[in-house]
Amino acid sequence: MRKILSIFLLFQICILGIAQQALWNGSQIISPEINKDKSVRFQLFAPNADTVLITGDFLPQNKMETPMGMVSMPGVDKMIKRSNGIWEYRTKVLSPELYNYNFIVDGIKISDPSNVYQLRDVASIFNIFIIDGDRADLYKVNDVPHGSVSKRWYESQALGMNRRVTVYTPAGYESGEKEYPVLYLLHGMGGDEEAWGSLGRATQILDNLIASGKAEPMIVVMPNGNVSKQAAPGETSEGLLPPSFLLPNTMDGTYENSFPEIVNFIETNYRVKKDKNNRAIAGLSMGGFHSMHISKEYPDMFDYVGLFSAAIIEPDGVSSSVYENSKQKLVTQFEKNPKLYYIAIGKDDFLYNSNKEYVRDLKELNFKHLFIETEDGHIWKNWRIYLSDFLPMIFKE
Amino acid sequence: MRKILSIFLLFQICILGIAQQALWNGSQIISPEINKDKSVRFQLFAPNADTVLITGDFLPQNKMETPMGMVSMPGVDKMIKRSNGIWEYRTKVLSPELYNYNFIVDGIKISDPSNVYQLRDVASIFNIFIIDGDRADLYKVNDVPHGSVSKRWYESQALGMNRRVTVYTPAGYESGEKEYPVLYLLHGMGGDEEAWGSLGRATQILDNLIASGKAEPMIVVMPNGNVSKQAAPGETSEGLLPPSFLLPNTMDGTYENSFPEIVNFIETNYRVKKDKNNRAIAGLSMGGFHSMHISKEYPDMFDYVGLFSAAIIEPDGVSSSVYENSKQKLVTQFEKNPKLYYIAIGKDDFLYNSNKEYVRDLKELNFKHLFIETEDGHIWKNWRIYLSDFLPMIFKE
Repeated sequence: MRKILSIFLLFQICILGIAQQALWNGSQIISPEINKDKSVRFQLFAPNADTVLITGDFLPQNKMETPMGMVSMPGVDKMIKRSNGIWEYRTKVLSPELYNYNFIVDGIKISDPSNVYQLRDVASIFNIFIIDGDRADLYKVNDVPHGSVSKRWYESQALGMNRRVTVYTPAGYESGEKEYPVLYLLHGMGGDEEAWGSLGRATQILDNLIASGKAEPMIVVMPNGNVSKQAAPGETSEGLLPPSFLLPNTMDGTYENSFPEIVNFIETNYRVKKDKNNRAIAGLSMGGFHSMHISKEYPDMFDYVGLFSAAIIEPDGVSSSVYENSKQKLVTQFEKNPKLYYIAIGKDDFLYNSNKEYVRDLKELNFKHLFIETEDGHIWKNWRIYLSDFLPMIFKE
Repeated sequence: MRKILSIFLLFQICILGIAQQALWNGSQIISPEINKDKSVRFQLFAPNADTVLITGDFLPQNKMETPMGMVSMPGVDKMIKRSNGIWEYRTKVLSPELYNYNFIVDGIKISDPSNVYQLRDVASIFNIFIIDGDRADLYKVNDVPHGSVSKRWYESQALGMNRRVTVYTPAGYESGEKEYPVLYLLHGMGGDEEAWGSLGRATQILDNLIASGKAEPMIVVMPNGNVSKQAAPGETSEGLLPPSFLLPNTMDGTYENSFPEIVNFIETNYRVKKDKNNRAIAGLSMGGFHSMHISKEYPDMFDYVGLFSAAIIEPDGVSSSVYENSKQKLVTQFEKNPKLYYIAIGKDDFLYNSNKEYVRDLKELNFKHLFIETEDGHIWKNWRIYLSDFLPMIFKE
């Protein structure tokens, strides 16, 4: 025991130093750098690059013509090369939000090597940063009591496999005896049981809204809606395969039919209230499609339904009883007076028209619902907003 | 509800397609590509780059002279540019292992944009891949019952804050009534409560060893050893700061003194066996240092102790009762006959000599211990091996 702490530290710094020197030619890059005025500077050391672009959701979006009309794509802008080989980009003053971005170096999309905060969305990796204030404060970790987040496995008899599910339990759950209401929160196409906890910031939104008394303490269950998969990419025995956006049987009725198993798993394994009044279901895009059909298929199960940029589409070439007699089932669902039927969509969403059409049908039928129209399109920014908006409305006595 | 599924899919593919075309000029790159013979091909589309290097732990290490003698650094090799602008690297046949790597493009260290499997270690992001077979099969997700992994928060009276802890509960814990033994598994310098579950593959190693009957079902607690921090980078109200390697008070006795709080939290919140015979503590590097001192400070607490590449050093300029009278405390600890005192170190580790010296002291004092000497240095490969080696030895009746 002769070696002393300072030499241990020296060695460790040395290792770290070498790793970073290889990168940065000895200079330490800070990126992103959030200025006091809430503008942001990005930097990338790339002396040999010909062109460095930045793409992110804080840039003006590009409109694009598609078979479904105009859609919005993330904007792109040029970074500027300084004489020291560092490329730089300065934004205008940004409004509070959680933003994502990447660099494109001579055509290669890369993560910012100075920013370890990276999140996966389907097959893409994004860097993130937060401009605080307003609603973005809901997306931050604040000094409030924190809920627990567990990755668990349940046995699906219907699908013949063990499947992974993310469960948020609110602060106080483990040490208390109270029973809690449950929100089932579903991901979109290509997503998985990690999506809402990643770019969705569900854990932070829940912690913050519950701590401020704006949302009721609740359990939130984030299952995997891809019935051919046991779990998120990399979490199954298939190994470290590239994540696929196109998975089989995601919108053919299988998930909807097997969904009560998940409810049953939660209700036999957690201290929860087990009535319609204490169950909610919400989802984004494909998860909104699932939420619409599951809540309609089991009209006594959920008193609160949230369709966030829902894929309100008619499955094509699919024969499932789940998608038959939709109108009659909807009548049954609404005869039972769900407490909240929430629909939110952005004006630039490619699903805007189909959502408007659905809302028109609900109006004609005199079905009580809440329709929220926002800016922007089919993006995480909106799903965080919709979740933050939806949570305070559910499970209120 | 007029839109049909195929158009929805088309749109989503379109979005995805655009995102990837920006990268790859329309061509899809597969990297890493693991061949049948267990050699690996890496590819990166970078037509304008002058030099592309690959660095990874499968390459021959570079030896370096440091104040502590020769140490090993990750190897680096050149990638070869093909006429289509794709840089390529082919390895020799690799032995089974979980490997990590990065590309260095004109001096910038980047992640492989074709591989979403990236893990953070302190302030670095690494891509990973697995060559299966032998012990690497322990690092894979296999079709076995899976334990749950929870991120929870406990109140530290001693440190005056809520702190995050990762808890692995074995398959069957939640649905059963059995009481389990507990291993406390500690990270190294700059690490946090996520480290062992990341490059350490602790979840997979535990699932696999327990499923095969080689390890006893146990709860594994991975706390945060940085007493100035509540949680891992990004998981506290400090926001998304760059992770720091050098944190205050990590080796000044504070953690050791506050450790019983963590044991108490687990023993009041989980169904566990609460005696020395059913408690183990192990850690890597700084976590080995902590395990050595905690087990010595509380000689009635742990019957199993694992020092993995432990930082067996004398803290310098630190005054804490924890590091005083070490020899006498060690005598007391060994008088109480711990069932296993396990020390493992690699021959190339900069801590090799101090570990050897410690083992010599233990031998002289006739203290029963198990000393394992392996190849390589202060790297995750060794810590996965030591954990896989240690787990089957603990909690056996």
